[in-house]
Amino acid sequence: MDTVRRIEWVLAEALSELDDPTAPRSLAAALKHAVFPGGARIRPRLCLAVAMACGDDCAPLSNASAAAIELMHCASLVHDDLPCFDNADTRRGQPSVHKAFGERLAVLAGDALIVLAYQTLSAEIHHRPERAKVLLRGLSKAVGMPGGIVAGQAWESESVVDLRQYQRAKTGALFAAATSLGAASAGEAPAAWEALGNWLGEAYQVADDIRDVAADAAELGKPVGQDLCHGRPSAVSTLGLSGALERFNHLMGEALASIPACRGEKALRALLRAESQRLIPSHMLGKPQGGKQVNPRREALPSSI
Amino acid sequence: MDTVRRIEWVLAEALSELDDPTAPRSLAAALKHAVFPGGARIRPRLCLAVAMACGDDCAPLSNASAAAIELMHCASLVHDDLPCFDNADTRRGQPSVHKAFGERLAVLAGDALIVLAYQTLSAEIHHRPERAKVLLRGLSKAVGMPGGIVAGQAWESESVVDLRQYQRAKTGALFAAATSLGAASAGEAPAAWEALGNWLGEAYQVADDIRDVAADAAELGKPVGQDLCHGRPSAVSTLGLSGALERFNHLMGEALASIPACRGEKALRALLRAESQRLIPSHMLGKPQGGKQVNPRREALPSSI
Repeated sequence: MDTVRRIEWVLAEALSELDDPTAPRSLAAALKHAVFPGGARIRPRLCLAVAMACGDDCAPLSNASAAAIELMHCASLVHDDLPCFDNADTRRGQPSVHKAFGERLAVLAGDALIVLAYQTLSAEIHHRPERAKVLLRGLSKAVGMPGGIVAGQAWESESVVDLRQYQRAKTGALFAAATSLGAASAGEAPAAWEALGNWLGEAYQVADDIRDVAADAAELGKPVGQDLCHGRPSAVSTLGLSGALERFNHLMGEALASIPACRGEKALRALLRAESQRLIPSHMLGKPQGGKQVNPRREALPSSI
Repeated sequence: MDTVRRIEWVLAEALSELDDPTAPRSLAAALKHAVFPGGARIRPRLCLAVAMACGDDCAPLSNASAAAIELMHCASLVHDDLPCFDNADTRRGQPSVHKAFGERLAVLAGDALIVLAYQTLSAEIHHRPERAKVLLRGLSKAVGMPGGIVAGQAWESESVVDLRQYQRAKTGALFAAATSLGAASAGEAPAAWEALGNWLGEAYQVADDIRDVAADAAELGKPVGQDLCHGRPSAVSTLGLSGALERFNHLMGEALASIPACRGEKALRALLRAESQRLIPSHMLGKPQGGKQVNPRREALPSSI
């Protein structure tokens, strides 16, 4: 089974309890809407790529880790789209959960997805009980306080923002969890893999800022111009579009350089190369912005990505 | 250390990471506000009472279970008070989290509390790895789909409500987790203890319905008349006040009858007796409602409670 099918399968398995006839129907439907169809599934793909690079000696555990990370990501999207945050009407090319099911069920769907993430991971820890604590701790660190995605979102309510802390928490934390849980699922020490996740998370955040101004809504499947609209810190507003692209290339280079020696290094690099192209497609690079090329330095991107 | 001080101590320990200087300040403050000062802490007291009744051979694990259950309860209160649900201004005698910190931080505080509950429990599972799966599964069952408190809240958005399922999920599930996690923390099979939690949860729900019409806001520390106001199913609207009190007595009797044989039975019965008095105080029983005594059958309450 290829990685993409493997991820969809484990997510479908994780959600299978929703077919229980005693479950409230609308919340069950809201949860399915929040998870399917997915976006790029980059975090679980990264988790499995690292697990495979490390030998993947316990597929049920790496599957569960990948699913848990994606479910946490889905939860954060559902809550981020709420009227009190982004008030976004669309997500992944369809109505956002609060638009389709109402605000109450969107709050509850986010809560239920957080629980489901832990439920999915803890259902498989008996395969390798000695890995349980580090996996669960890694998942919590990525989502909760003081430096997980919930903390990242909370920085937007602070009068004085620690920008590095904000970006690390809002995006980096779940990427760091993807790489470190991938490694830990396969019995490797997660610490050596955190750097890769952190660099990729930061690169992804910069790419997101770029796409927020350079892509169109149909391409993204969600509204554009949200950073400006909500007065959020953005790499584009700080560095300009060209500077942001330069930063993206730098971060991807650092990510590659941080990969620990492992047997699956080649496949991992191939994934990162493809992901870099997906994040900032060539047509976006060639699009004139204010009369000049967006990224004259794209060639500086390491050819090995 | 007595049970009340033990619970406050483990909760304070669980929240100690919020003092991390890298944490966003407002969310840290919102989390503390949601947890301190507490209410009656009945769920963690029940959890510890059952753990002690079963021998309490691993205090770090029973402490963590009790704290996790209370943190989940606090999370549910924060989200239940949101404008899209009860829109409650006060809770536990102080402003609700969304009133004190705004809606965004209230959504995030609920999310962070759910994560903190798992974090607190999973930090101690290495003491008894063989108990990890059943404890984590019990916690998730109490909160998530298909029958946990999130599902219970979601029943309020259904056009056709399964009343028993609704009440079991909304209140019973976390009480059942309190008793079953208490037993599991001490190495006992949790299944035998679930019935006690279910009966108590139902009794608590009926008591809550009674207090919603028979107490005053200052006494409860939250607004009264919420069931009528939100058109929610209530034992009082179904059975009348006198019938609801009779039902409460019946449920407490069933709860007592369900206690498995154990060494700490006496202390457990004493806790239930005190709790029964706290839930429906004598002065409330004597209060005339529409010209008659509220509960002429109070004497039927088993004297052994």
